[in-house]
Amino acid sequence: MPKVSEAHRSERREQILDGARRVFSQHGYFGTNVAMLEAEIGLSRGAIFNYFAGKLDLFTAIAREDKNRFGQVWLDDGYDALVRLIGEDPEWIGVYLEIGRLLRTDPVLRERWSDLTEDIQERIVQRYVELQRTGEIRDDLSFETVLRFLGVVLDGLVVQQGAGFPIDVEGTLELVRSALSPK
Amino acid sequence: MPKVSEAHRSERREQILDGARRVFSQHGYFGTNVAMLEAEIGLSRGAIFNYFAGKLDLFTAIAREDKNRFGQVWLDDGYDALVRLIGEDPEWIGVYLEIGRLLRTDPVLRERWSDLTEDIQERIVQRYVELQRTGEIRDDLSFETVLRFLGVVLDGLVVQQGAGFPIDVEGTLELVRSALSPK
Repeated sequence: MPKVSEAHRSERREQILDGARRVFSQHGYFGTNVAMLEAEIGLSRGAIFNYFAGKLDLFTAIAREDKNRFGQVWLDDGYDALVRLIGEDPEWIGVYLEIGRLLRTDPVLRERWSDLTEDIQERIVQRYVELQRTGEIRDDLSFETVLRFLGVVLDGLVVQQGAGFPIDVEGTLELVRSALSPK
Repeated sequence: MPKVSEAHRSERREQILDGARRVFSQHGYFGTNVAMLEAEIGLSRGAIFNYFAGKLDLFTAIAREDKNRFGQVWLDDGYDALVRLIGEDPEWIGVYLEIGRLLRTDPVLRERWSDLTEDIQERIVQRYVELQRTGEIRDDLSFETVLRFLGVVLDGLVVQQGAGFPIDVEGTLELVRSALSPK
C-alpha cells in the first residue's frame, strides 16, 4: 500500500475518533445516532463505517484509545499526574463513564475490554511490584490489592468529576500516599 | 384522606419504584421505555404516571431512595458495612451508575440531586467531625477532604462492581483505614 494512502487513512481514523468522542461524551452511547456522528465528524456514514464496523466498534475503539492514554500517563508521569489530569475534566470522561454501564449489560464487550490493554497493564504491575520490593510502598498486601485500590480511587474520581462535582486532587493524593505508606 | 387509601397509595408507589428500578438497572435510563416499565411493574402508563410526572421524575425518585438507603447504612452500620454491601452487587448499582451520566448532561437534575439528602449527609458529617475530635481518625486534614475521599472510594467500588469486576472488599477497607489512621 502506498505510503500517502496509509497516512491518509490514519488521519481519517483520528478525525473520526475525535469527532465521535465529542458526541459520545456529550450525549452518551445510547443518545448518539449516526446523523449526530456525521455532523460532528464531517463525513458521511459510508465513510465513517468504512473505518469502523458499527457504533459499538467505534465506541470501543475510543474507549480503548482513552484507556491506553490513561495508562500511558500513569507509566510516564506517575499516578499523581493521572489524578491531576482527571481534575482538569478531559473530554474522555464522558466516554469513560459510559463504558461502565455498557460493560454491565454486555458480557461480550466485557470480555474484549479486559484484553484491551494487557501490555500497559503489565508494565504498571511491574512498577508496583518494584515499589514494594524497594520498600517505597507497603508490601504487607498483594500488589493486586494495591493496584485495585488505586484503580478504585481513579474510577471514583472520574465519576465525581464527570458528574460535575469538583474533586479534591491534593487531598486525595495525600490520603492515597498515607494508605500505601509502609507500616 | 382515609387511612386505607393512603396505605394503598404508598404500596402502589413502592410497587412502581421496585419494578422501575429493575428495568432501569438492566437497560439504563435511555434504554428504558414506557412499555418496559408497564410490563415489569404490572400497571398501565396511566397508573404509573399518576404517581410520577414522567420518566425522569421516576428515575430521580429511585436514585433518591437508593442514595438515602446508602447513607442510612453508613450511619447505622458504618462505612465498612456499606463497602461490604456494594460487594454483594445490589440491584441499585445499575441506577447509581446511570445517575452519573445524567448528572453530567443535566444541570437542573444536578441542582436537585445535591439537595436530595441533606439531613443524612449532615449526620454523616457530624460523625466524622466527632471521629476527628476523639482522635480516631487523622485530624490534619479537613473533614471535607476525608469525606470526599471516602465518597470517591465508594463511587469507584460501585463502578467496578457494576461493570462486573469483582471488588476486593477487605483489601480496600484495610487501605482506607490506613489512609485515615492518625499520624
